[in-house]
Order: sequence, then structure tokens, then C-alpha cells
Amino acid sequence: MQVAVLTFDGFNELDSFIAAAIINRQRAKGWRALITSPSKSVTSMNGVTIEAQRDLEFAAEADAVIIGSGSRTRDIARDEALLAHLRRMDPARQLIGAQCSGTLLLSRIGLLGDRPACTDLTTKPWVVEEGVRVLDQPFYADGNIATAGGCLASQYLAAWILLRGAGEEDARSALHYAAPVGQKEEYVGRALASVRPFVPGVRAA
Amino acid sequence: MQVAVLTFDGFNELDSFIAAAIINRQRAKGWRALITSPSKSVTSMNGVTIEAQRDLEFAAEADAVIIGSGSRTRDIARDEALLAHLRRMDPARQLIGAQCSGTLLLSRIGLLGDRPACTDLTTKPWVVEEGVRVLDQPFYADGNIATAGGCLASQYLAAWILLRGAGEEDARSALHYAAPVGQKEEYVGRALASVRPFVPGVRAA
Repeated sequence: MQVAVLTFDGFNELDSFIAAAIINRQRAKGWRALITSPSKSVTSMNGVTIEAQRDLEFAAEADAVIIGSGSRTRDIARDEALLAHLRRMDPARQLIGAQCSGTLLLSRIGLLGDRPACTDLTTKPWVVEEGVRVLDQPFYADGNIATAGGCLASQYLAAWILLRGAGEEDARSALHYAAPVGQKEEYVGRALASVRPFVPGVRAA
Repeated sequence: MQVAVLTFDGFNELDSFIAAAIINRQRAKGWRALITSPSKSVTSMNGVTIEAQRDLEFAAEADAVIIGSGSRTRDIARDEALLAHLRRMDPARQLIGAQCSGTLLLSRIGLLGDRPACTDLTTKPWVVEEGVRVLDQPFYADGNIATAGGCLASQYLAAWILLRGAGEEDARSALHYAAPVGQKEEYVGRALASVRPFVPGVRAA
């Protein structure tokens, strides 16, 4: 399972790295989550410059995609060359999740359809302006399209991809590793409870 | 308030970036958390290369330091030139927190004293070998020295620095921003409950 974590200039470190690091717990099983960007390097909203691991072509090739978030998403949503790359994604063969302002891009490329969606409180008015019903919850998925709202909800996008692509045991193990000591059961339980209702065939408890 | 987030080759992205991003919510008030490394760039345990924002001199100059974690900390703990830099830190004038395997470095440079400490489950045996009593909890602080265990407990190191350097209102605001939508009160409440007992003068509720 190859996962593209779309990361643009002005990116929010939490949104890209929490999901990527949790998914990369599956590396021993051949999974890889890779920072995927339109340029060789991108600089975060807090001035941290990172090197991309893949270019935007990878967005259409990966088995799953997470559209990250950041402070410049409204500019990116007007970049037609970039949107053309994103429009090559295909939810018939890819899992596609959007984090916070990534939901705006998902809407702009027409992949949200008439689904309600999650996003952060800052992005909410812009997504509402697009005609999307924004939910007061951290995670929502319908079929192969998911959205999450609030930086730390990126855990839930990772959990969704693990549940869909691997199963509950692997999802539990990756979430358990990342959770605070002494609060691991609480964290794993809440993550699975937030995501399970949207994964067909995974039992409620 | 200038905060050095010590980040070494093999670093865990969660451990450096969660704390840094939450603290950087205070940027409008003049705070900055900066990735601080022994070389111009460092590569994470998952192959992500990032540029350092400050060099190791900054560890002794910053108002607060977070010692990040990673897969190469045991090698780093044998690097005497690097440890010499870290020994220039001074808990009389700096807040010093260690995340996961960062606790091993904190012990090695003699700053833990006879305090018990938090760390992750992988690092635990190595820290126990140093003669440290490891706690089954996500966060512990005594005076200006704190430790946290489990990647997502890096939220609590950030909360501690915000509580100590700013106050409860600013800590709440930064944690609230990062928390998942629909679970914000739960997240903020748990973070403050995990940290408050170790911050003198902050009320229990």
C-alpha cells in the first residue's frame, strides 16, 4: 500500500506528519506513506522546509491519498495546473482522504459530490461557500472518500486507511504505538470509535 | 519565548512537529518553536529530509528546550561532542522537556537527577538500565525538567511550556486549535489534567 500525503507550501506540519507517521508503522508490511508535493521542497506555515519524497504524478498512482492542509490552500484552490493533477485521482481505485483545508481542494475538484464533510473551524466558511454541509465531528467517510477536521483528527484518516487496507489489528497496533503512555487504550478506543461507523464490515465493538 | 526543538537524524516526526506546531500557535505573541539540529539538514526515521532552523548552539540560548526522539538516539547518546552541547543547557534559566527517547539523553547529561521519568515503551529498558524509575503515565515534571512518553504525549510537553511561560488561557487556545472537531473539550481537558498537577500555581480545575 503506497500512500501519497499531499503537502503544499504553507502546510500544517500536524496534518501531514501525524497521518504519515502512523501509516508508516506498517512499513515492515510493505506500506509507505510519502510526502508528495508540487515542488522539490515545500515550506510549512511555521517556516520549516522539507524535501518532497514524490512529485504530484504520484497522487494518481498511489493506492491512497491524503490531501494535507495549510495556510495557503485558498491560493492552491485557484491553481488550475495543480488542480488538473489532482483531478487525475480516481476514487474507484484509490482511497482519498482530505484533512482540514484539504476538504476545500476535494470539493473544488468535484470529488465530494453531495457528501457532507469535515474540516477545521477556519476553513469551514470557505467550504460552506462551496455549498458543502460541514459536520460538527472529526471524521466522515462515504465509500472511498473521507474528510477529517482538526489537526489531531489526522490520526483518524490514518486509522481509516489502515482499517480499509489492512484491518483492525494493524490499525490498533499503529494507533497504540503513537498514543500517550498510560492513555493508550483510551486513545485507540476513541480513534476506532470515530472511524468504524464509516468502514463497512468492521464490527462496532 | 524561544523554544528549541532538538531534532536529530532518525527523528520521529510526531515527536518534533506536534510540540513545535502547538507552541507556534503563540507566534502572534512573539513565541517561536524552532527545529534545532546538529547539521544543516536531518532525515527522519521515515526518510523525510528537513532543513534545521537553528544549530545546536541554540539549545543553550533558548528559553525552553524540547529534546525530540527518534530511532538513532542510542548512537546519539554516545556522541560526546553532541552531549557537550547539551550539557550547556541550564535548568535554572531554561525549561527542559524530553520526549520518548529524548529521556535517555536527558539522563545521560545528568539533568534527570533522581527524578522518575516518562518515556516510550521501546526506550523504557534503556532508561531503566540508566537507573531511572520509569512511570506508567504520559507526562511528569519536577521544577524545570519534564518528560513525556508516547508520541502524542508531545501535546503535553507543549501544554507544559505554554502553562509555564504564558498561562492557562493561551495553553487552552493552542490545544483547542489542534484538537479534533467535536472532541475539542475532551482533548483540552485531558491535556490540562495530564499537565496541571506538575505546574505550581495552576489550579486543579
